Formats: sequence, structure tokens, C-alpha cells
Amino acid sequence: MGEFELIARLRERLEVDPAARPAAAARVLTASGDDAAVTLPAGATATSVDLAIEGVHFTRETAPLDAIGHKAMAAALSDLAAMGAAPGEAYVQVGVPAGLAEGEVIELADGVAAVARDHGVTVAGGDISGSPVLVVAMTVVGHAPDETALVRRSGAREGDAIVVTGELGAAAAGLLLLESPRLRQAVVPDTAEALIERQLRPTPRVAAGAALAGAGAEALIDLSDGLVADAGHVARASGVGIELDAERLPIAPGVAEVAAAAGVDPVRLAAGGGEDYELLAALAEESVGAATRALEALGLRLRSIGRVVSGTSAILRGARGDGIEVEGFDHFREQAAPRSDRAEPA
Amino acid sequence: MGEFELIARLRERLEVDPAARPAAAARVLTASGDDAAVTLPAGATATSVDLAIEGVHFTRETAPLDAIGHKAMAAALSDLAAMGAAPGEAYVQVGVPAGLAEGEVIELADGVAAVARDHGVTVAGGDISGSPVLVVAMTVVGHAPDETALVRRSGAREGDAIVVTGELGAAAAGLLLLESPRLRQAVVPDTAEALIERQLRPTPRVAAGAALAGAGAEALIDLSDGLVADAGHVARASGVGIELDAERLPIAPGVAEVAAAAGVDPVRLAAGGGEDYELLAALAEESVGAATRALEALGLRLRSIGRVVSGTSAILRGARGDGIEVEGFDHFREQAAPRSDRAEPA
Repeated sequence: MGEFELIARLRERLEVDPAARPAAAARVLTASGDDAAVTLPAGATATSVDLAIEGVHFTRETAPLDAIGHKAMAAALSDLAAMGAAPGEAYVQVGVPAGLAEGEVIELADGVAAVARDHGVTVAGGDISGSPVLVVAMTVVGHAPDETALVRRSGAREGDAIVVTGELGAAAAGLLLLESPRLRQAVVPDTAEALIERQLRPTPRVAAGAALAGAGAEALIDLSDGLVADAGHVARASGVGIELDAERLPIAPGVAEVAAAAGVDPVRLAAGGGEDYELLAALAEESVGAATRALEALGLRLRSIGRVVSGTSAILRGARGDGIEVEGFDHFREQAAPRSDRAEPA
Repeated sequence: MGEFELIARLRERLEVDPAARPAAAARVLTASGDDAAVTLPAGATATSVDLAIEGVHFTRETAPLDAIGHKAMAAALSDLAAMGAAPGEAYVQVGVPAGLAEGEVIELADGVAAVARDHGVTVAGGDISGSPVLVVAMTVVGHAPDETALVRRSGAREGDAIVVTGELGAAAAGLLLLESPRLRQAVVPDTAEALIERQLRPTPRVAAGAALAGAGAEALIDLSDGLVADAGHVARASGVGIELDAERLPIAPGVAEVAAAAGVDPVRLAAGGGEDYELLAALAEESVGAATRALEALGLRLRSIGRVVSGTSAILRGARGDGIEVEGFDHFREQAAPRSDRAEPA
């Protein structure tokens, strides 16, 4: 099958019925099939790109193809959630290795399409090419009425509370389970499956991002590199310090057991593991209550885990107030070291 | 050097002085450094993505790093030229193999930046990661006052003239010279350098695209896959046939000599070689004169090379009116065959 036949097949899988989504159809005038997609954005747009490369971000040994597509789209949309933007369009570039069958490429596209559908995203364009390894390069565009509705990383102020959505450490524990199946006996099968699912098919917190923006979040970021690393990005962008309280981290069920079986500290999985795709926000203390109720309405817990102080970096403090060093995700260091190392101390 | 240090270095190279480009600065409110870039587009936008992968689209043996960056940006902007859009923002995703030194990554970024600067493009975001091979995934966004100013592939009408900008075959001949240095003796050194330069550092026809759109082009496409293949895209999108006259193709100086030395037909290089990044347009006969003068003002020749007829595909006709089969660029077929094969008959 040549390039153009495969593109036609993929287009069918990724297309949306315009009748089902009239607002998106009005904005996307020409999707794939021309030199460029033509859209009519209104207000402010937030654009993010996200690269997933075989052997670095995933392996085909542990991730099914639909999960590779799912996660690439989810990770990209997580960046829009972290702006409080409403997802709009996606552009998907895929490098396909020779060994990958047509059906497998379509399975990957189905994973992309499932997440796009869940979040009202139009796949408006893409590119496909042969490649020595599987590559998925995602571009997503989100929308907001105006730029003041979008939340940067740079607005955290001394005295703000640091809050986090959902639960931490599940994706890192899921990765340990995928890499060392013997660890599965540490938890009941349902818990193991839930942890693995968080690693393979994360959920971007799109509605939560909008709710936090609406509740007055001063700064917002998604947890992709790891809690401490991502809090560090907010600290540097805002010119403040961030103190996180290790005892208050909402560690996901089963993480402690998997960590114990693997001989690692569960706090390191929760604070350094990354890929949880939860959101971290800086909120004025008086806004925490309303934000918590808004998240509850979405079925998500919001946990206050620290505070903004003077300083220039993020620090995780243990029970006795001592700093705990946690290494975040570095896409270069990753290359040299086995993947599960990223949860290890520096 | 870790990911974040390198990103900071690259940001410096890619940044533009807002004072030098006030309109772009007003549109791009937040560039890299947050979860997403924030822009305020007005009117219609054209968005295109373009993937360049080592071993498929380029090799580091024949292409210097600045040329890899240059060509990735130029190829992406060529798609905007083919819409008649004004280039605005670019988002650059790079997968960096372990063997690539920091200075080499910066050389690649400098190639991207040079083309961006020439065309007033703001690099508004990006992603960088380790990778088994060098990967450059480009996203570009262009702008137009409204969607009617953007020219699709689908508007060609029976009776239209088919015109092409500049000269053809240079990129394919340049590739032959890079792959078989012994062929260089077929032409004088300056000509060899010019052909190689067209392969390594193509110029997107941005101003020509705007001029052709302004002159009433009914359909517009850039020549990346090869003249006949790209004319075929226009034919299928427009529901027409396209007849191209082999005797009228503007073959670039030196292409005939290189083709003769390599034992291939120069018409196949010009009509099937691809990567010339010239533009092909369908124009009403009465618009050809004005379009030609508009292109002359840009220092570019516009050549009428065929016509739109009834039918469903593009055909190249020789001196006796017989069809000549020419194989275009297929990113999957490419993978199985040596690269220079693409200029061979099917």
C-alpha cells in the first residue's frame, strides 16, 4: 500500500461527522487533503506540540498501538488543559517503520481518534512517512475567548496554595509493572490493570483545566516531567519558590505496594515519576474552596500539597521538613539510562 | 547538557526581536516557555505539518545540519505558499540522536532560523527529545484576511492553463550529484553547486504564491512529490484532467548534462524528481499575462506548460503526443528503494 492509499484510509478513521459538531465544522473549513488546513479561529489560540519516539517515550513491546496513539494525543491535550484552553484542532505526523502492517497503523490512528472524539478535537491535518522507528509528532490547537482566559506558568505569587488534581504515581507504578511483570503479584489484578492503564492511556484533565482557570488559578501546569520538576518550571517562570509537602501527596492506590515490591520509595514515584498528566495550580488561599468544589463536580479530587514562598525553585519536604531530592524526566538523560531509572534518586 | 539547558540555548538562536517585527509580536503573545504558545490570529489561518526523517528524507552523509533545518522549514513554508498564505508562526519538534553534539543541534536550529527570518516567521514553540535517528517535525501557520484569499487544489476548471514557476529538475539533479560525485564533471563547478544548493537549501515560493493567488489562480500546489504526481493531486481534487507538455517544461540549466552523465532522461528528473518546491497553478487563460508580469516583478519566470481538460488524472505528453509515465515521490515506496530510484520509470 502506498502513501496516498494509506492516507485515504486514515482520513476515514479520523474524520468527524460535521453535523455532530457544528461549531468545530464552522471553524475548520478545509481539513486534510490540501496543502494546508484552513481554519477560522476566533479569540485567542493556544498551540502545543509533543513528540513521541519509539525507544524513548514508548516501546512496542509494552505499549499496544492504540495506546501509543491514545497517549500521544492525550499528552498533547494535557498541555492545552494546562492553559485552561478548549481543545480544537490536531495535526498528526506519523513516521511508520517498515515492519508495521497497515492494520497496525490504523490501530494507532484509532487510539488517536478515540481521545480526539472524547474531547471534541478535529484532526485537521497530518503527514505520514516511512521511518526507521515509530514516530508520532502531535500538534494541538486550543481556543479561548481571549488571552486573559488562558493561564500561564508565570503567575504564581508568594502566599498562594499549590494544589494538584487526582492522584500521583500511578503512571510510574504502571510502567514498573509493564517492565517487570513479576511485580504484579504485589497488588490485586484490578489495581495492577488500573495502574497500567494510567501509564498506557492517560486522561488529559481538560475539564479540570478549564475549571481551575475559571476558579482563578494564578499558574497552571500539567504533570508530565514529574511533580517536583514541573513545580520547578512554575517556580522559575513565576520567579518564586515552591515548597511541596511529601506527606500530603495524593498517592494513587497500589503505588505503595508496587514501590515496596520494586524496592523504591513511593514518594519518588509520586513526585518524580512523571506522566500522570494531572494538573498543578497555584491558587490564592481564598480560591481553594471554590476550586475544590468545581473539581468535585467533575468527579476529581483537588489536594492542597504545598505553598508558594520566596525563592527560585521547587523543593519537596519530608516529615521532618528536610528536602528530598527527586529526579524528574529529562528526554536526553532518558536516552542513556534504562527508562525505569527516572524514578531513582539523582 | 540536559533537555532544559539545550532548549534555553535554542530559544536564544530562534528568538526574534519583537521591535523588528511589531505585527508578529502583537499576534504571538507567549512563545516557547509555557505549556502552549498563545496567539491572537485574525482572519483565516492555513496550517500545515511536514515530517523529515533521517534515512528517508535526508542523510547526514550528504546534507549538512544547517541544510537539514533549512529544508525542513522551507518545505513546510512551501505548503503555505501553495495556499497563497502569509507565513506567521512555526513550531519545531526535533528528535536528536545520541551522537549529535550540542553544536550540531544549534547548527540545525540556525538553518531553521535563517529561513524563518527570511519569511518573517516567528518560531513560537517546539519540542526536543532524544531519538534513535534525527527527526524534524515542522508545523507552520499562515494567515490571510479571509478564507476566500486562500487557494485550494480543488478549483481547476476545464480550459484553464497550467503554469509553473521557476525551473524544474534542479533538486533531483542535485541529489544525483550528492550521491555520485563523479557526475560533477558533467557540468561546470558553479552549475554543480547551484544544483546541489537547490537540493539542500530550497527556497519556498512564498511571494510567488501570494502573487498567483492575487492574479486569480483557480488551483495552486507546490511541487514536492514531482510535477506529474502533484498535478495529479490537483486533477483528482478538482475532478478534471491535466495534460502537461514535456517539450515546454522549464528544465533548469545543467539538468540535461547531469541526466546524460547518469544515463537518465532529463524530462524524468524535471517531471518526476520532486523537491523543486516551485508552484503549479491552474489559471484562466486571460489571467496568464497578468500573472506572468507579477512573477517577473519578483524575478521569477512563469511558464505555461499544459492545460486542464476533462478527465481525472494528470498526464505528461511527449513530442508526438504520447503519454510518458513518470513516477513521483512516495514516502513509503522510498523506504524500500534507493533514493535515486525515484527518478526512474515506474
